[in-house]
Amino acid sequence: MSTLLPPRTDAAAPAVFVDRHIGIDAAAQARMLEVVGYDSVDALVETAVPASIHVQARTTSSIPPAATEAEALAELRELASINRSARPLIGLGYYDTFTPSVIARNVLENPSWYTAYTPYQPEISQGRLEALINFQTMVTDLTGLATANASMLDESTAVVEGMLVARRASKAKTSVFLVDVDALPQTKALLHHRAAAVGIRVHETSFDGELPEAFGAFVQYPGATGRVWDFSAVAAAVHAAGGLLVAAADLLALTLLRSPGALGADVAVGTTQRFGVPLGFGGPHAGYMAVRGGLERQLPGRLVGVSQDAVGAPAYRLSLQTREQHIRREKATSNICTAQVLLAVMAAMYAVYHGPQGLKGIATRVAQRADALASALRAYDLTLASDAFFDTVRVHVPGRAQDVVDRARERGYQLLWVDDATVGVSVDETTTDADISAVLDAFGLATEDLPEGIALRGVDDALHREDEYLTHPVFHTHRSETAMMRYLKSLADRDYALDRGMIPLGSCTMKLNAATEMAAVSWPEFSRVHPFAPEADVHGYLEMIDQLERWLAEVTGYDAVSLQPNAGSQGELAGLLAIRGYHLANGDIERTVCLIPSSAHGTNAASAILAGMKVVVVACDEAGNVDLGDLRAKIAQHAAELSALMITYPSTHGVYEHDVLEITQAVHDAGGQVYVDGANLNALLGFARFGDLGGDVSHLNLHKTFAIPHGGGGPGVGPVAAKAHLVPHLPSHPFSQRADHAGGTFDGGPVSAAPHGSAGILPISWAYVRMMGAEGLREATAAAVLSANYIATRLREHYPVLYAGEGGLVAHECILDLRPLKEQTGITVDDVAKRLIDYGFHAPTMSFPVAGTLMVEPTESEDLAELDRFVDAMVAIKHEALAVAAGEWPADDNPLVNAPHTAETVVVGEWEHPYPRETAVYPVRSLIRGKYWPPVRRIDQAYGDRNLVCSCPPPEAFA
Amino acid sequence: MSTLLPPRTDAAAPAVFVDRHIGIDAAAQARMLEVVGYDSVDALVETAVPASIHVQARTTSSIPPAATEAEALAELRELASINRSARPLIGLGYYDTFTPSVIARNVLENPSWYTAYTPYQPEISQGRLEALINFQTMVTDLTGLATANASMLDESTAVVEGMLVARRASKAKTSVFLVDVDALPQTKALLHHRAAAVGIRVHETSFDGELPEAFGAFVQYPGATGRVWDFSAVAAAVHAAGGLLVAAADLLALTLLRSPGALGADVAVGTTQRFGVPLGFGGPHAGYMAVRGGLERQLPGRLVGVSQDAVGAPAYRLSLQTREQHIRREKATSNICTAQVLLAVMAAMYAVYHGPQGLKGIATRVAQRADALASALRAYDLTLASDAFFDTVRVHVPGRAQDVVDRARERGYQLLWVDDATVGVSVDETTTDADISAVLDAFGLATEDLPEGIALRGVDDALHREDEYLTHPVFHTHRSETAMMRYLKSLADRDYALDRGMIPLGSCTMKLNAATEMAAVSWPEFSRVHPFAPEADVHGYLEMIDQLERWLAEVTGYDAVSLQPNAGSQGELAGLLAIRGYHLANGDIERTVCLIPSSAHGTNAASAILAGMKVVVVACDEAGNVDLGDLRAKIAQHAAELSALMITYPSTHGVYEHDVLEITQAVHDAGGQVYVDGANLNALLGFARFGDLGGDVSHLNLHKTFAIPHGGGGPGVGPVAAKAHLVPHLPSHPFSQRADHAGGTFDGGPVSAAPHGSAGILPISWAYVRMMGAEGLREATAAAVLSANYIATRLREHYPVLYAGEGGLVAHECILDLRPLKEQTGITVDDVAKRLIDYGFHAPTMSFPVAGTLMVEPTESEDLAELDRFVDAMVAIKHEALAVAAGEWPADDNPLVNAPHTAETVVVGEWEHPYPRETAVYPVRSLIRGKYWPPVRRIDQAYGDRNLVCSCPPPEAFA
Repeated sequence: MSTLLPPRTDAAAPAVFVDRHIGIDAAAQARMLEVVGYDSVDALVETAVPASIHVQARTTSSIPPAATEAEALAELRELASINRSARPLIGLGYYDTFTPSVIARNVLENPSWYTAYTPYQPEISQGRLEALINFQTMVTDLTGLATANASMLDESTAVVEGMLVARRASKAKTSVFLVDVDALPQTKALLHHRAAAVGIRVHETSFDGELPEAFGAFVQYPGATGRVWDFSAVAAAVHAAGGLLVAAADLLALTLLRSPGALGADVAVGTTQRFGVPLGFGGPHAGYMAVRGGLERQLPGRLVGVSQDAVGAPAYRLSLQTREQHIRREKATSNICTAQVLLAVMAAMYAVYHGPQGLKGIATRVAQRADALASALRAYDLTLASDAFFDTVRVHVPGRAQDVVDRARERGYQLLWVDDATVGVSVDETTTDADISAVLDAFGLATEDLPEGIALRGVDDALHREDEYLTHPVFHTHRSETAMMRYLKSLADRDYALDRGMIPLGSCTMKLNAATEMAAVSWPEFSRVHPFAPEADVHGYLEMIDQLERWLAEVTGYDAVSLQPNAGSQGELAGLLAIRGYHLANGDIERTVCLIPSSAHGTNAASAILAGMKVVVVACDEAGNVDLGDLRAKIAQHAAELSALMITYPSTHGVYEHDVLEITQAVHDAGGQVYVDGANLNALLGFARFGDLGGDVSHLNLHKTFAIPHGGGGPGVGPVAAKAHLVPHLPSHPFSQRADHAGGTFDGGPVSAAPHGSAGILPISWAYVRMMGAEGLREATAAAVLSANYIATRLREHYPVLYAGEGGLVAHECILDLRPLKEQTGITVDDVAKRLIDYGFHAPTMSFPVAGTLMVEPTESEDLAELDRFVDAMVAIKHEALAVAAGEWPADDNPLVNAPHTAETVVVGEWEHPYPRETAVYPVRSLIRGKYWPPVRRIDQAYGDRNLVCSCPPPEAFA
Repeated sequence: MSTLLPPRTDAAAPAVFVDRHIGIDAAAQARMLEVVGYDSVDALVETAVPASIHVQARTTSSIPPAATEAEALAELRELASINRSARPLIGLGYYDTFTPSVIARNVLENPSWYTAYTPYQPEISQGRLEALINFQTMVTDLTGLATANASMLDESTAVVEGMLVARRASKAKTSVFLVDVDALPQTKALLHHRAAAVGIRVHETSFDGELPEAFGAFVQYPGATGRVWDFSAVAAAVHAAGGLLVAAADLLALTLLRSPGALGADVAVGTTQRFGVPLGFGGPHAGYMAVRGGLERQLPGRLVGVSQDAVGAPAYRLSLQTREQHIRREKATSNICTAQVLLAVMAAMYAVYHGPQGLKGIATRVAQRADALASALRAYDLTLASDAFFDTVRVHVPGRAQDVVDRARERGYQLLWVDDATVGVSVDETTTDADISAVLDAFGLATEDLPEGIALRGVDDALHREDEYLTHPVFHTHRSETAMMRYLKSLADRDYALDRGMIPLGSCTMKLNAATEMAAVSWPEFSRVHPFAPEADVHGYLEMIDQLERWLAEVTGYDAVSLQPNAGSQGELAGLLAIRGYHLANGDIERTVCLIPSSAHGTNAASAILAGMKVVVVACDEAGNVDLGDLRAKIAQHAAELSALMITYPSTHGVYEHDVLEITQAVHDAGGQVYVDGANLNALLGFARFGDLGGDVSHLNLHKTFAIPHGGGGPGVGPVAAKAHLVPHLPSHPFSQRADHAGGTFDGGPVSAAPHGSAGILPISWAYVRMMGAEGLREATAAAVLSANYIATRLREHYPVLYAGEGGLVAHECILDLRPLKEQTGITVDDVAKRLIDYGFHAPTMSFPVAGTLMVEPTESEDLAELDRFVDAMVAIKHEALAVAAGEWPADDNPLVNAPHTAETVVVGEWEHPYPRETAVYPVRSLIRGKYWPPVRRIDQAYGDRNLVCSCPPPEAFA
């Protein structure tokens, strides 16, 4: 093993990206090794990582030598250029849109937004929480329902979640779920796949005959064919049987059409993509879900609510967190963790910027152009599937469909080939009259002048919307670009993101999201591509995806990778569904038990349940490792039913378990499959491979290890990687441009709405691997492990490090036990976390996986100065706590329990605390030069749950 | 005249950019009109603008109907696509470079940097001032000289300024200036043109024979041919004769070569373009100038220095402001006003990010590749002009030069055709070995393996640099991208820019810089184009330039426009030089008197002097208008010598003078030319035209009226527009791709280093006009005038409005007289300006054009809420001043004289002021929700001038 992080002394050596990505240089590494007590990084890592699993040096690699930033950008431009630009009029839930430049520049391309973490520390997340509550208000207003979450992963998974809500809330005693025959085809594919795993029987229907008893029904509004219809009779019938109605609705259409709520839907779902979020070959986009009153507590995923802070000021926070999988674990009903926050913010801001009048204008122009197209087609005696439509027309052209689609493509347009006799055309906000004329030309029709279009001409008057929406002032105030820019800036100023300082969140890997990696996401050649575009138009994307899949497979020791899952949770589910499929294919129908260690991330259990498995918990020993004895006992107990073991490596305790090979062997010996959770891959890359540990399948988190930013709580990408025997059960997709992923080699059924998931952000991970090279990835791992051990070593005397492996070493994160401190001083982990805000830090992960602890993961991207700043802050806080214990400050009035301190606290009114103002907000003098001021005091979580408010409060609330 | 700003009620009308650009909507307009007392904007503007100059409605316009943002972007992409991508190896002061993505994204594409104003309010500009002092330190270190400014407009104008410094500082009594025959050709062209106007005789020499007596000499280092030579003997000879040596030096070369200072240069100048600033078809880039000790006070332009604030903390500010033209007026020796701050920041950050070792590495690789190329050429018996070179080789290929250049172009490379026998190749940091091989192939040479390159192989050892540079910690601390991103963010956080609130700077027109306008600046098809690229490769640029010129000519009423001047001052100079050329061509050699009203901007006088004119001041009357009587008297007095009158319209007093036609007629009758300063065009566009007022020539400020951002003090673009008779004297350029601009129709000699000046930012103004349309431009003017009159009306009872025209109306700005307040309360204009910071505002223009006043220009982009917030703040401040007068607060201890208040002020230590903390920092309650905290207290200007420190202070200074 060569020395890592070698000093690069050759003056003529080109600048390498790895030196920009890794925060510690050779000099810092030397100082840190001295503290940790090792001579070299080699010695450190060789001791920490069990020798038995060390990867053998490979002489060849599919990963090319590291490119410079300029080279990577040039290669990305080359890939971009081989995507063929075309105007997509395919529809099916995906529409071209114009992202207002002020939003693109100040949100999508602004690290203050995209490098933020999930708002679990609400005091330092008020900006994006306000943006998300705007999102929720937008969704509830447009859908006509009471409460919306923020956000779902995409429309099709939202429909599945809607079905699960219906099952939970329904009084009907049946496993049948009715599905609109006019639903989007990808949604139907997901429903069938996901329903089968949990024992739901999907019954497709056009709702016009006798209906079987069902716990719920799903309608698409408008339908996939474009048809706008009144589903209120279906709602009434379903309700009469004790069931719930789930409607997928197009938000833009809803600015003109009666809301799903008004038509009787209990749950509305959909996508907000066409609200200014680029197509990106399928994602990421924010899905949505809204429910009627009474169903709030059934909502999956994150829900932003209004509470109040320590002085009674209104403050936003995530509501009802007790529902989340990391709390409910094996009782969870949803595995949603990462959402689509960045995209939800964009969609919400699109509504804020356009306002109701602007949105209605956009919808009206879309509907007018669709009608003009329809009128022209009818004038030539062509028949349409429906005359009641919003933006989509289906045209009857017997035997000529392929010809029409081909002619359109020659003219630069992508239409939808439905069958030999049918072509679909969907109009979007970017469509012009010239586009309509060109489409007519593709149909062989000459048009001198387009007929006048009338929005919703064929739609029954009763379905025209008349109620008001988006009446809150936020949708009326930021109409000029100047006002919008300042609003976005003012929100970003309230938040703490990686551009201010470190976010040492254990298990989240908040590493650098480099600007070069982010660049291509904004290029139109990548951003304006429809997920169902013809294969010939997307060669650039397919080549990038193919390369990235091969690279990921290689570094994890698997045979194949699917990039379809658009969050870690979905990757996990896809992996478990692959295991399920494998056992079923082998006739092992009884293998449904999933063993999960007690230390596991809550998502594991939730995903297992959604894959139709039964969770059995395996104990951990005192060192935090899987208790081999208990494991063997549980295996013996469930031998015939054993489906899988889910294990995280290194463990969620931040330790490399030395028994891992024994563990996986035991599972295999009993006929089970091993699922290795990839959350902690950043501690392993280049040193060991999941496949070599005995893993059969894993998901990876590209938003952790592979540099995709967290976006304030999404997007994420959760590829699933598997050994050859599971590959036939990996995700497929009916619209995949690759035959082997459309039921060929990969035949597991879809887990995301788009064939390649959130393809639009794959350039980030592609660029990361391309610029790091295999050796750079290894250096990053070593630097991450060294940094975690440096922190553990320096803090150990102040806070016990809960778990450690060989030589007292941790992996890439360490758990600081704050329970002794609490015992000694009464200061809680919460107090410390909030006090860190005063010191200018985002708190580490709180009370996971062990209550009363902080899990610190510095990542490789922090430099030594920042690591030291953090250690110094933690030590200073320890001394503050001791001062409380010593009676210097009262237990109920000290800088810790009062943290965080706002500027207002130290400015307005009398100061009546026993410590000076500067101790409150400048505990360290260097903060005077530049301080992040939290916008609110500590937030009362319980108050918010007792008083659930999930839409924008009136401005007077802030007076 | 139609009603302006009509409410757009048609729901289906497409979103128009003008509604995003203009801050006030129809409802706000109605409320504002009520306050101002007019029924309609028509009536208001018809009263304000003299009827005699109203433009007649034109039925046809060269400006197309307003495009949407999406349409404008699509058209820009089309223009971009017809520039032909090629790798430029032309050199001559312009080199391709890789802008680190972290700098591109967080500076060039970040409104916090690009929408900032010139740091005249240093307390709220500490971030960019620190960036600029980094720039100055970088320049002084690399040039080996004592003091550098920040910044020059480009290398060639910096050489001219260097010549002028030499003339001022020299003891030699001669008008001869020696110029290196190996200087850049564009620099020589500028020197000849500019020297002629001020009576300097330029003598070109190769410095190897007997030299004439001279006040100074200029050497190029390395030379245009690439030659690296030791000019210390020239320096000694020039010094012996009492002269100064000016050297233009390549900063990248200086990382390897002995510094100009070490070789005896008194002044070093150059460009910092290749430090990460995109080529942009010629600009904008930051030039530089550094001088030896003793010449500090001769430096033109802006100089950042270190002073201290009210509590003795170090604080940056512009030093020696008394030198500036707005103070010195007709005694000015330089007309530099706008600099290139944004680009200087980028170049400085490039040095911060790479550090000395990184820069040396880049330079070494460049020199190695150049040597590898040279070695390969020599191996094939080709002769080079010099064997001592850094990055440029000149190859002797008798009769084949065009063929080699053509072959290179076919391969995607642009080489320099020098003459039939000579080709030049310049290597830059983006050049690869493959590029070198391709170039050799263009020479017809096959290369299996490139020979090994040795940097500076042929350069005398004595010229190899050995001293250290960039030793300050700032060049060693921000080496990872994470650290760099945070450094840039921390600096931006210290500054106030348009993304925080209004900057109502009279005469500066701080309007919206829309994100759509900015987008194309970053596209490689525009950013990576060499200014001397062959015409066939730049059709996209030329078409855009041609369109923009036509649009600008039309809206100003002139016959032609040149976009070459890269700042307003240079446009002014170009206009005056055109007048000079015109008179000379007519044989009127005695016409050298330039009449300038006493209210004029100081640049006017400075430019006139640099155009070889004699300034005669014309008095203004009490209303601030030109005193017609005095004008006629001065004309009579100087009848035979009358060259020109310079007049600003509307006047710098913010008023539409009703006598303007009489004024211009009087000048024309006397044989003079009329120069209309375009600074206030934002009050006129669409309503009147300079050409119709009697103007013969004008400069425009695209960074005021046409939406180019101020960038914290540059870049600017100052096109010169003229009537037909002056067109032959408009700027030409030896390398212009347009024959008519290379001595054809335009034959006035160059005023900028690049043929089209700062072409890289012209997409901004192009997009602005394209999206506004002619009608939108007119609406913007009306909104700007309405907003200014709204502020004047609301504030008049609190602060007298100093000047007004018909009906008590002002134009687009108003001057608030604070002298009565001072008399009454002792509170100065400075106190009010600094107190506005506490209220969250950037102060209006202070004491220009009248001492003791504030000139307020809200522009059309602010919304009514922000206008009201400003008015309310001004009223509140008035009340605070009255409280001082009433004895409520002592004269020397009140919120006004103590302003601005930092957070530290109200937190640390005891509070001993007679007003509460919240009055200090939260004078308005809404500030609690979001406040800009100034980083320093009021800065002591005099202290800084007494203790001149113009490079980075040691970190301990801030402890």
